[in-house]
Amino acid sequence: MYNYHFRSSPTRINRDFPNEMESLRSQSIKIFKTALFQVDAFQAVLENLSLKGNILRIKTGSDSLKEWDLSRFKKIQVLGAGKSAAPMAAAAEVILKDRLGDGLIITKYGHGGRLSKIKIIEAGHPLPDQAGCRGTRQIVTRLQASGSGDLILFLTSGGCSALFTSPPPSISLKEKQKTISLLLKAGAPIQDLNTVRKHLSLVKGGRSARFAYPATVINLVLSDVIGDPLDIIGSGPFFPDSSSFQNALDVLWKYRLIKKVPTAISAFLKRGVRGLFEDTPQPGEICFKKVTHRIIANNRIALDAAAQTARKLGFKTFILSSQIQGEARELAKFYGALARERVQPHTLSKNPVCLLAGGEPTVTVTGPGKGGRNTELALATAIELNGLGKISFLSAGTDGTDGPTDAAGAVVDGRTCTRAFHKGIAPEDHLQNNDSYSFFKKAGGLLMTGPTGTNVMDLHILLVR
Amino acid sequence: MYNYHFRSSPTRINRDFPNEMESLRSQSIKIFKTALFQVDAFQAVLENLSLKGNILRIKTGSDSLKEWDLSRFKKIQVLGAGKSAAPMAAAAEVILKDRLGDGLIITKYGHGGRLSKIKIIEAGHPLPDQAGCRGTRQIVTRLQASGSGDLILFLTSGGCSALFTSPPPSISLKEKQKTISLLLKAGAPIQDLNTVRKHLSLVKGGRSARFAYPATVINLVLSDVIGDPLDIIGSGPFFPDSSSFQNALDVLWKYRLIKKVPTAISAFLKRGVRGLFEDTPQPGEICFKKVTHRIIANNRIALDAAAQTARKLGFKTFILSSQIQGEARELAKFYGALARERVQPHTLSKNPVCLLAGGEPTVTVTGPGKGGRNTELALATAIELNGLGKISFLSAGTDGTDGPTDAAGAVVDGRTCTRAFHKGIAPEDHLQNNDSYSFFKKAGGLLMTGPTGTNVMDLHILLVR
Repeated sequence: MYNYHFRSSPTRINRDFPNEMESLRSQSIKIFKTALFQVDAFQAVLENLSLKGNILRIKTGSDSLKEWDLSRFKKIQVLGAGKSAAPMAAAAEVILKDRLGDGLIITKYGHGGRLSKIKIIEAGHPLPDQAGCRGTRQIVTRLQASGSGDLILFLTSGGCSALFTSPPPSISLKEKQKTISLLLKAGAPIQDLNTVRKHLSLVKGGRSARFAYPATVINLVLSDVIGDPLDIIGSGPFFPDSSSFQNALDVLWKYRLIKKVPTAISAFLKRGVRGLFEDTPQPGEICFKKVTHRIIANNRIALDAAAQTARKLGFKTFILSSQIQGEARELAKFYGALARERVQPHTLSKNPVCLLAGGEPTVTVTGPGKGGRNTELALATAIELNGLGKISFLSAGTDGTDGPTDAAGAVVDGRTCTRAFHKGIAPEDHLQNNDSYSFFKKAGGLLMTGPTGTNVMDLHILLVR
Repeated sequence: MYNYHFRSSPTRINRDFPNEMESLRSQSIKIFKTALFQVDAFQAVLENLSLKGNILRIKTGSDSLKEWDLSRFKKIQVLGAGKSAAPMAAAAEVILKDRLGDGLIITKYGHGGRLSKIKIIEAGHPLPDQAGCRGTRQIVTRLQASGSGDLILFLTSGGCSALFTSPPPSISLKEKQKTISLLLKAGAPIQDLNTVRKHLSLVKGGRSARFAYPATVINLVLSDVIGDPLDIIGSGPFFPDSSSFQNALDVLWKYRLIKKVPTAISAFLKRGVRGLFEDTPQPGEICFKKVTHRIIANNRIALDAAAQTARKLGFKTFILSSQIQGEARELAKFYGALARERVQPHTLSKNPVCLLAGGEPTVTVTGPGKGGRNTELALATAIELNGLGKISFLSAGTDGTDGPTDAAGAVVDGRTCTRAFHKGIAPEDHLQNNDSYSFFKKAGGLLMTGPTGTNVMDLHILLVR
């Protein structure tokens, strides 16, 4: 079994397999590819934003639009931050053409490129650095300078929280980082984390909207968070915050960190509670009046595209959920139950079946091996599917990078384990050691896409003929 | 929130709820009831077996039949064992009427009753006892006495392995029990367990078919095992065994029990390996030539009936799997993801949706509380669904007994946790302590059916309007 490189020739893929299984695996890769295309950062902007004459349109639903007459605006600029900022900005340049004034985006080191009007700043991710802070200050200056004759197209994607960062003057970046890392170690969930984060920032938790007002803001969002919560993606720079300085302080109390965080942090939050600084803008505040959010790509959109392709290929298709969480191994048992149900002779439907899911399972690492959550899920599912015929399962990250590996994920079928076993590769042992990447490296089945420039979490594709 | 007794008046159920949620919960109970009816032991025999003139028919598929001309047989008798043996035998009496000679069945203490022609013996379950051994010897005598002019209708249901039991003369019941309990403690899976069990029995692993041959045997099976494996349900008295004495001995070596089991056990198996006793009949042996198996009820049949009712109630319905296994809490996360997907505004389908599943999840008990796998799953799912509107989830055992409780399971919705919380009942704490039964006892939502006389594992019903 070979590993699948997106550009490898089909003959190379097909060599030593029973055709039917191989064809199922190839079909699952095809389905994954079309899903990737639909959530490609460049493509997603083109899909959602259009300019006809002076009218700028965004889709706000499957058959609803929102329009702006660009002749009303003096200046149009593109701002934004995230790992997909560069391709998104490139698409904005293509659409807006000479109507675009200029712009500035912040992206991760190595994720930049060259654009004709929009300046690109590269900065640190996942740990913020001074380059990010400097870029953020420049964006803030631009937001503050804009007035009611300005249109700001903001581009948000995964990584925005780290890249678009600006601690208040009395707090250093290091102190802020230390606080966040203490909360992470204490096991604080994202809601608690963000409550603190938003109150240690000049731009998060809707504060950017205050800077921008009264300019018009269109925020195009590429979602990498389960359920697309606009207050959490990129820490919601233009979205109302429902928490307060007091809540942020309460979180530190709750995790018994009030005395462990740097003094500057607790002092700042306490001054906030006493009303010395303005709190984050609450829902209904006027600064949000001219802000429009639009999720241009998310896991569900990828799943819908996958479903469309699967149906074209003749599969009876069902989308389970775009919000899959939980331990990968346990999830594999569930997928195993779904798969076995469909290969039972007495329940066999005449149509081939495609079950689709997406989200972000977790892996509790206990072994010393190498692997990501996608290869781990694929290996655990391969063990569940062992011995079943005419079945395949694909699990891959839409960003093309599965954990600390160079693979996006893996594709398996009912003979993956037996084949590996005959080569002396033990599936159970590799799973036990969290060594799923090494398993597939030796046994074959890795899916190699390279970095895709987008991220809407993972896709799971189960095919049964 | 009240607990649901199957005979409680609707007005009592409806009292203090938002109508929509209550109606969803009532509908899920209605769906569960129709599923129960379809797998009712008495009903299932009537559904699958019919007599017209001299022709006895069983369904062998959705549109296929197998027929026997009863005029060819001198004597027809009903034999069998299991917790549902009595209602199954009652149905056989109804169908066969005066064509029935007589019969003998073994069931659990308290599960018997009175039949006109078939004798009922009550015996020990889950631990076998001498009453079971005596009953089994009587059945063996009847099997041995039967010839080619005999038709035996055998009735298998959950509990058959313990009730239909006959250790070889050199082994005592106690020695056999000790061996099985050592294997259970060592964590041996059902396959390994059965390999040993079948080689310590005179009737299991297809041996009963040898006694019966050349009589005709129709084995009606009510399946309480995932995937309906005929060699595992009741340890397959009439089904070929693919294991050998050597395999049984290997299992004892594998779990390092060879010196811990009673000497009589290892000595017996070793003599078996040396060929001093005939091994279990392998596939293809002549004794199986006149045996017909028919699964008359299983989890999938219950799910299909549930699906039919759900569709009639206007739900777009999807059967996930009848083979659900794995830890109940992890499963709840999955059901949570499926539920949330369907209450997202952007993915909301116009039809109300019903997702159905079944099987037998497990609970790893770490707390001191009281609960079964169904109430635990319902509580964990209630926590996942907290705050969602227009949603309900039911988890219940088809036998009406969830673990060590008097409930079949529980019904929850998006307000179950909030409502409990306001009464001072903490959902998370109860889950932590495996105290789900107590939670529902106080908070309401228990489903009380009483013993149903059937068992095809559990049903999970998720409704979203």
